[in-house]
Amino acid sequence: MTRFPVPETDELPDDLRKRIDEETERAGFTANVFEAYAYKPSHFRAFFAYYDALVEDTPLAREEVEMLVVATSGVNDCLYCVVAHGALCRIYADAPKLADQLATNHRAADLSEEHRAMLDFAVKLTESPERITDEDVAALRDAGFSQEEIWDIGSVTAFFNLSNRMAVLADMRPNDEFYTLGREE
Amino acid sequence: MTRFPVPETDELPDDLRKRIDEETERAGFTANVFEAYAYKPSHFRAFFAYYDALVEDTPLAREEVEMLVVATSGVNDCLYCVVAHGALCRIYADAPKLADQLATNHRAADLSEEHRAMLDFAVKLTESPERITDEDVAALRDAGFSQEEIWDIGSVTAFFNLSNRMAVLADMRPNDEFYTLGREE
Amino acid sequence: MTRFPVPETDELPDDLRKRIDEETERAGFTANVFEAYAYKPSHFRAFFAYYDALVEDTPLAREEVEMLVVATSGVNDCLYCVVAHGALCRIYADAPKLADQLATNHRAADLSEEHRAMLDFAVKLTESPERITDEDVAALRDAGFSQEEIWDIGSVTAFFNLSNRMAVLADMRPNDEFYTLGREE
Amino acid sequence: MTRFPVPETDELPDDLRKRIDEETERAGFTANVFEAYAYKPSHFRAFFAYYDALVEDTPLAREEVEMLVVATSGVNDCLYCVVAHGALCRIYADAPKLADQLATNHRAADLSEEHRAMLDFAVKLTESPERITDEDVAALRDAGFSQEEIWDIGSVTAFFNLSNRMAVLADMRPNDEFYTLGREE
Amino acid sequence: MTRFPVPETDELPDDLRKRIDEETERAGFTANVFEAYAYKPSHFRAFFAYYDALVEDTPLAREEVEMLVVATSGVNDCLYCVVAHGALCRIYADAPKLADQLATNHRAADLSEEHRAMLDFAVKLTESPERITDEDVAALRDAGFSQEEIWDIGSVTAFFNLSNRMAVLADMRPNDEFYTLGREE
Amino acid sequence: MTRFPVPETDELPDDLRKRIDEETERAGFTANVFEAYAYKPSHFRAFFAYYDALVEDTPLAREEVEMLVVATSGVNDCLYCVVAHGALCRIYADAPKLADQLATNHRAADLSEEHRAMLDFAVKLTESPERITDEDVAALRDAGFSQEEIWDIGSVTAFFNLSNRMAVLADMRPNDEFYTLGREE
Repeated sequence: MTRFPVPETDELPDDLRKRIDEETERAGFTANVFEAYAYKPSHFRAFFAYYDALVEDTPLAREEVEMLVVATSGVNDCLYCVVAHGALCRIYADAPKLADQLATNHRAADLSEEHRAMLDFAVKLTESPERITDEDVAALRDAGFSQEEIWDIGSVTAFFNLSNRMAVLADMRPNDEFYTLGREE
Repeated sequence: MTRFPVPETDELPDDLRKRIDEETERAGFTANVFEAYAYKPSHFRAFFAYYDALVEDTPLAREEVEMLVVATSGVNDCLYCVVAHGALCRIYADAPKLADQLATNHRAADLSEEHRAMLDFAVKLTESPERITDEDVAALRDAGFSQEEIWDIGSVTAFFNLSNRMAVLADMRPNDEFYTLGREE
Repeated sequence: MTRFPVPETDELPDDLRKRIDEETERAGFTANVFEAYAYKPSHFRAFFAYYDALVEDTPLAREEVEMLVVATSGVNDCLYCVVAHGALCRIYADAPKLADQLATNHRAADLSEEHRAMLDFAVKLTESPERITDEDVAALRDAGFSQEEIWDIGSVTAFFNLSNRMAVLADMRPNDEFYTLGREE
Repeated sequence: MTRFPVPETDELPDDLRKRIDEETERAGFTANVFEAYAYKPSHFRAFFAYYDALVEDTPLAREEVEMLVVATSGVNDCLYCVVAHGALCRIYADAPKLADQLATNHRAADLSEEHRAMLDFAVKLTESPERITDEDVAALRDAGFSQEEIWDIGSVTAFFNLSNRMAVLADMRPNDEFYTLGREE
Repeated sequence: MTRFPVPETDELPDDLRKRIDEETERAGFTANVFEAYAYKPSHFRAFFAYYDALVEDTPLAREEVEMLVVATSGVNDCLYCVVAHGALCRIYADAPKLADQLATNHRAADLSEEHRAMLDFAVKLTESPERITDEDVAALRDAGFSQEEIWDIGSVTAFFNLSNRMAVLADMRPNDEFYTLGREE
Repeated sequence: MTRFPVPETDELPDDLRKRIDEETERAGFTANVFEAYAYKPSHFRAFFAYYDALVEDTPLAREEVEMLVVATSGVNDCLYCVVAHGALCRIYADAPKLADQLATNHRAADLSEEHRAMLDFAVKLTESPERITDEDVAALRDAGFSQEEIWDIGSVTAFFNLSNRMAVLADMRPNDEFYTLGREE
């Protein structure tokens, strides 16, 4: 399932086992990213603590977070994140076609002007961070995003530039469930 | 110093103030990344917890970590990270010329074969993560890196693909001190 | 549904109406590419005649044709072709996960060595045709493909470099059905 | 002359032989693309039927078609199409220098504003189809092109994105005649 | 003829006028690069002194120099240099088709193995100088080039990376004569 | 110090030895570019004559010349030029942080609007000369640069596109002194 060994559940530190149990309970299956990151507990803790902060402490709607994740992961051609967060995107946005659109090309997606501006920024920050200037940040403000939303749009994008590269490093494989979740209207 | 407001020290949560005080004590000045991240305490905690795990729980030498940071940040043209971690790279590697070489072009740097393989991997994972295959991972193993070292090489690179984009988002400015630290032999 | 007007069915030349009726019969719905191309009947005839030749007069398995289409369209970020031929790929290959893998990154797909060589060629011919040399063609032969298969691998790839650009020009939208077809095992 | 075998004339299906004879009659020599495509008659028919539709059923002037072909083929570095259609471009536009200018860099060519807009679109659709948006199509309309002309500008460009890749696949060599035709004023 | 004013002949310093007269005598017309550079005499002198050293003090055959120029200028899409040195390449190599091949795509040109290695190096040094390593230099040596030839191959390539940018800066237009010179066998 | 042999001082032609002595006198050490170019005296003379014209016969301030050199060399990832001219940039601009900023990313540097326009032009002329149009030149004029300054901005940029490639070809190593010169305020 990954390029690195996955420890047995009973060899895991308690906090990791507890988190994995909760996630498995919630989803009905254990997303492979948890098993992959269990290879190194200190990184498991850090990675998911950051992730939790991104999705829990933000004025962005959860569907907006997932739209950012899918568009970013599409640019980086990251299979695990496109498929796993594609499912979350479909579910949170209640939009069965959105994830395929965003993963393929956000410019062809059915989006509000605000969300197009949001994803234009995310895609540019992913593809050519060195070209981001005040004008790009101003475009987000003009689209109606608050200062904290702008920080969070950038943060989610930045975090998945980390996450995409970890998934590639470990060759994480998406669980079968993610391919189909949320596809029914 | 950044595109986002920096809170007054006495408005900070205790744990952030404590961390900033410790860092200031250690370095003799407050690195701007701490002030920039203080804009959002939940992200401050997550970011530095991950960073701590990367530099403290690893078989990589600290100088190797900093070499990875500087080469990655050079590819992403990230001023804050090139200058701030350039100083750390010079200090930890006790090599006053190394950071300028790595930031400009790791192919022109004075490196062992092992470190060249390490940085070839980091640069490819940064520039084109979608092209990483088993062969790239095997090249690290052939260069003598252990499984955990390979995970950590990828993790440091991935984390600074996050960090570079946060520095760009916030337009973080390197402290003057970083430009000159560690330049004397 | 597209940037160009779609003629009423009863205004269409007989041969176009007949073809559209047959396709609608077969699929249970009218794929939007037929309506989009109906804008210009002479191009409709030429486009589908070429397409028919590609899928009917070839030693390649139909699933191989669709794998080539999806990988090519993924590189070109073409929403219509990724989604519509993603469905065909799932159905012909009887592989519900394959299309998402190929559209995202063929290097991360579950593939035989032969099919990996086939798609490496298609992706290179799409991304940088000017760099194709005898060695690339030899790699296909070494993977076991016959001369005619090599011609056809190149032809399918070339045709969808046309088709992707027509879909972008016309802003063709995939039918809802394509998003979900063939996803059940 | 190509990477694939060229059948003897008397082994060809009648319709192919007839077309080749006509073309040879018209040009005074047999353009190699006909011999190359004769390798696979079903593709020969489809390819030239599409080509015929593009040049015969269009409000674009023939010289405009050839300008699109040369600029597109120049971007794709396709020797056969640059040289063969360079000759046609010189002849139809009655402009001995135009093809070399377009093949090298359409931005440096002697062009009307309308033709510059036409070729800007073609070059963008060739280089980065995923970035084409409503604004690019509007720019063609603003330059005075009708809806059908816009369809045809895109179609010629798309078709030569196919054609360039077939020429590369087969390593088609331009006939000597094409290098010099139409160079005299 | 260029973006900068061209001084009257009788306003030129004597040495420039003498050089221009000699060149005009030799070629039968005044190549526009001389008039363009006459805008700034100190640069005229420096530019042509360097050029003279490249073509006069070298073990490379003059046709090899011109092949390097055309391939480099083709990569940089430089109209003036492709057309003007295309003529010189045809004449010195006595090869009427070579320049069009090299300007379009040196990989599709009729070349010896030695010259292919030479031009592979030139194209890489032009496109991505930061990726040149010992292996690239060794490939030239393996192809039979002497140390001085390697220096000169690199120097001609480097000089035309200057020259191409000056032609673009000044928007130099090739003289009509260059388009047709040397096209007859 | 370079890939090519460095002649002994007493084997050098008088004019080269004289120039090297003067440079050594002025700087307190012999910059390696002089020793590297001494490999081929005719090129030594041409290279430094052009360089002298660029820095001596120009309305640009010397610090502007060096800013152009560092930004261009940063884009080309050229170690020798970034480090050696980084020192000159710090000294002439009396700005100890400027060179690191320009070498990493001129968009993140502390610059006047005029200098930002100057470096935007230089970076574009370096990265994609084929895309330079009248608008880019007009942007320089709008920023207040005279015709001759525009010529010289382009010329310095073009010359260092030569120089960067020569440094890469020869693998020139910066002298240790350059790493630290001008870093004190």
